[in-house]
Amino acid sequence: MSLRRGLEQRSALWALCRSVSVAAGGPLTQRTHGFASLPDPIGDDSPPQNSKNGKVLHPDLLNENLVRAEYAVRGELYLRGEELRKQGKEIIFTNVGNPHVLGQKPLTFNRQVLSLIASPALLEHPEVGRLFPSDAIARAKQVLTYFPGGMGAYSDSRGAEGVRKEIAEFISKRDGYPSNPNNIFLTDGASPAVRYILNAIIRSDKDGILVPVPQYPLYSASIQLYGGELVGYNLKEETGWSMDIADVKKSVDDARARGIAVRALVFINPGNPTGQCLSYQNLEDIIKFAHEENIVLMADEVYQTNIFQDERPFVSCKKVMMDMGAPYSEQELVSFHTISKGALGECGMRGGMLEATNIHPDTIDQLYKIASINLSPNTFGQAGLALMVNPPKEGDPSHEQHEAEAAGIIASMRRRARMMTDGFNACEGITCNYTEGAMYSFPRLNLPPKALQAAKKAGKAPDTWYCLKLLDATGVLTVPGSGFGQEEGTFHLRTTILPQEDKIKDVIASFQKFHASFMDEYR
Amino acid sequence: MSLRRGLEQRSALWALCRSVSVAAGGPLTQRTHGFASLPDPIGDDSPPQNSKNGKVLHPDLLNENLVRAEYAVRGELYLRGEELRKQGKEIIFTNVGNPHVLGQKPLTFNRQVLSLIASPALLEHPEVGRLFPSDAIARAKQVLTYFPGGMGAYSDSRGAEGVRKEIAEFISKRDGYPSNPNNIFLTDGASPAVRYILNAIIRSDKDGILVPVPQYPLYSASIQLYGGELVGYNLKEETGWSMDIADVKKSVDDARARGIAVRALVFINPGNPTGQCLSYQNLEDIIKFAHEENIVLMADEVYQTNIFQDERPFVSCKKVMMDMGAPYSEQELVSFHTISKGALGECGMRGGMLEATNIHPDTIDQLYKIASINLSPNTFGQAGLALMVNPPKEGDPSHEQHEAEAAGIIASMRRRARMMTDGFNACEGITCNYTEGAMYSFPRLNLPPKALQAAKKAGKAPDTWYCLKLLDATGVLTVPGSGFGQEEGTFHLRTTILPQEDKIKDVIASFQKFHASFMDEYR
Repeated sequence: MSLRRGLEQRSALWALCRSVSVAAGGPLTQRTHGFASLPDPIGDDSPPQNSKNGKVLHPDLLNENLVRAEYAVRGELYLRGEELRKQGKEIIFTNVGNPHVLGQKPLTFNRQVLSLIASPALLEHPEVGRLFPSDAIARAKQVLTYFPGGMGAYSDSRGAEGVRKEIAEFISKRDGYPSNPNNIFLTDGASPAVRYILNAIIRSDKDGILVPVPQYPLYSASIQLYGGELVGYNLKEETGWSMDIADVKKSVDDARARGIAVRALVFINPGNPTGQCLSYQNLEDIIKFAHEENIVLMADEVYQTNIFQDERPFVSCKKVMMDMGAPYSEQELVSFHTISKGALGECGMRGGMLEATNIHPDTIDQLYKIASINLSPNTFGQAGLALMVNPPKEGDPSHEQHEAEAAGIIASMRRRARMMTDGFNACEGITCNYTEGAMYSFPRLNLPPKALQAAKKAGKAPDTWYCLKLLDATGVLTVPGSGFGQEEGTFHLRTTILPQEDKIKDVIASFQKFHASFMDEYR
Repeated sequence: MSLRRGLEQRSALWALCRSVSVAAGGPLTQRTHGFASLPDPIGDDSPPQNSKNGKVLHPDLLNENLVRAEYAVRGELYLRGEELRKQGKEIIFTNVGNPHVLGQKPLTFNRQVLSLIASPALLEHPEVGRLFPSDAIARAKQVLTYFPGGMGAYSDSRGAEGVRKEIAEFISKRDGYPSNPNNIFLTDGASPAVRYILNAIIRSDKDGILVPVPQYPLYSASIQLYGGELVGYNLKEETGWSMDIADVKKSVDDARARGIAVRALVFINPGNPTGQCLSYQNLEDIIKFAHEENIVLMADEVYQTNIFQDERPFVSCKKVMMDMGAPYSEQELVSFHTISKGALGECGMRGGMLEATNIHPDTIDQLYKIASINLSPNTFGQAGLALMVNPPKEGDPSHEQHEAEAAGIIASMRRRARMMTDGFNACEGITCNYTEGAMYSFPRLNLPPKALQAAKKAGKAPDTWYCLKLLDATGVLTVPGSGFGQEEGTFHLRTTILPQEDKIKDVIASFQKFHASFMDEYR
């Protein structure tokens, strides 16, 4: 398996981060065990160094795992974009899957319900019916029954039972298999849900987590933060970013040979940044593999309704596992979902969740205990989850409009996925797999040698250098492939497909113009 | 310094937690380094144990720090309370500072603004003025300018700049010294803010954090979770839970002699669970001490508007530090605040914050990076913070009602603080310092020897045993003092003062009746 340099985020801001190298199928970080500037704590009773130049919270004296953690989505490119924005330049933020900031409208019904639950007095106002439809009023009253004390009270630390029950019903209906509300935890966005599990599973730097390369950097950053070992496995670009189990197996064997206990396998379906949807067959293979190798599955399914290709519908890992029957239906699995994606795109509300399947009940209790330290997830995000899984029904006054809005958003995204992919593929030296799902295109940049030399001269990773030039020339803010991991010698960028349809044509045209002149300069 | 047993949370649920002992002024936990059941990772290349009875996420094979972390507020008592509630018994939840669940009403104006920002369509509705006052509409429009893309978009990872600016103005006005919005981080409640700092500061189990005994268990649980060392210092019950710097100094010296680097001092003002307000003089002493000993101050000031005694107003640590001038005004300080307490009591919204003063800019950047892994705090909680620090002004249509509501809540709490304290002090063998601030009474239970023997026989810490009996007899759910830490041989319980005025008399009467018959049995 090839080594490559990656996660190049060495801006002024992150200059204090240690140099990091990424190995696909190997360790993400070359670790410095202990603290270089500190005495060895073993066999020496003097306390570790507590301050430097009078500062206890000196950057050289912080938790090393925290310093080492890297997060590319808001890294060097983002900071440069913010700088340009403050200078008055129009920046198109395609670096984060943040649809509302690019003009996607929230679903009317959902927001009406949120307005009503926010003000109990409004709900009781005699004229409320002039401003709100009757089904929104009824739904608000129902949601409020889940929150004794209203939206201002802490709920159960796992989230309100009523919401978890609605989610369990949604999952049961989606998969055709029962779901237990007590195995569902609601969180402030899906990121903390992922981190609960990683925090529980990682005991030391001898514990490894299988993560796809390319991956969403929440995983690499969190694994670094918890002091574990990222064990990368390559997604195959040439076969539409599919998972090759033989390759995953090799990553596991290599890691074990290094003394690593490989404990979990993360996969993102639909893929981020890669946009692929896994086939039923591919999911079966993954489940068999996890069972044989005794590895927990972590299924990041936050993009399950962002589906743009009829031939490749979303199938949940849980459904496939249950379809397969014993022993596979007993496989340990944690699945993640959110209100930040799909037609809702409610990123700011921070409503996320996990469902734990076949996880030891005492472990569930431990997760409950950890959740309770933060008291409860935010109640508006919880309400958002209820609204996501239980939209207005046929015959309800808001049903038609709600369906039209939601379907319209997904249909438009589908057109934009096509436009974006076609736009990249029309460029000299760029190839791009079709965005089957999620919110991203991840084109491969075949950069000419002259460009590679220029990047080297500038002291930057070639894709970072390219993305900075793109940003300066066009205001289009993307994330370089090195922020996600990529095979050595390949270069990519990630862009969301989220600029609205009237804008995205200009974004693509502007990109193509930039790329053409770039090629003229460096071809 | 005396040793004592504490944090007795050995219910069926937490049975898997290791035995834990607390030493005031010493280590909170008697640590088991490494994993008892695992091979020593040093000098052995075989991977650590990955599964047990076919389970990878087996409770015996989780992150030991996570398993060890204890959280009493929702521990054995809470679980028993939930059990009784499900059996149909009326439970009075005085275990958590969760005012709305006990009937405290949200502030009308704040909720009106939240309703309006939730639905942009509502804000533009021609009849919106029939249901909302003009200042709520204007304020909603202003708050929305802080959130490009509205409430459904991720904000800056530190929180929206507009909100941070309003908070900085509030702090500047409160203290008479400037505050920089770039040193303010908004979080999903204050708990994650505290945890950001602890996560950054704790490098290993050789790093110690000074925490009061008794303390709010967020601190003990988080320090355990991050693998640090809790260094307790006793609050002096006999002098109204004051801090004795000589005693703190002894804790520091003892810890250093054990090879611990003491890096931060946590204090809670007003106190939780102890309810005291620190005097200006006490704060000066703390600041001098922190400066001399080179220790970061962590000022938990979430109860700063829950003040019930005119002679003891709240003074922020930052103000005292700045008043003192150099070198004290250069002391490293992180202060915490929230919308969950005060007159708002908006626990469910999860709006918290930290202000970092005199913290190294590169460390601020590191915190920013870590915040960015979670993308952004929830936007409704952020809006709640803006509303807290910038209420309707004199002359605004909502001003009078808003002031009356807020003042009414605090005045009522003040009456309840008095009733609760007097109620405890009227009981045989119970003494209780007056609740000068915050939301809690923390009476001392002088249990007769017969009661201690009965508790021992039941296999429970005496205060846990007492609180369970109280719960079973009255439905009043409290937290035993062992959940917070207390001097050896002393026993306490914590109750909130939050039952509404029509209820609290019954709660006190019911407690007194229980206690009288308890004493008849065990005197």
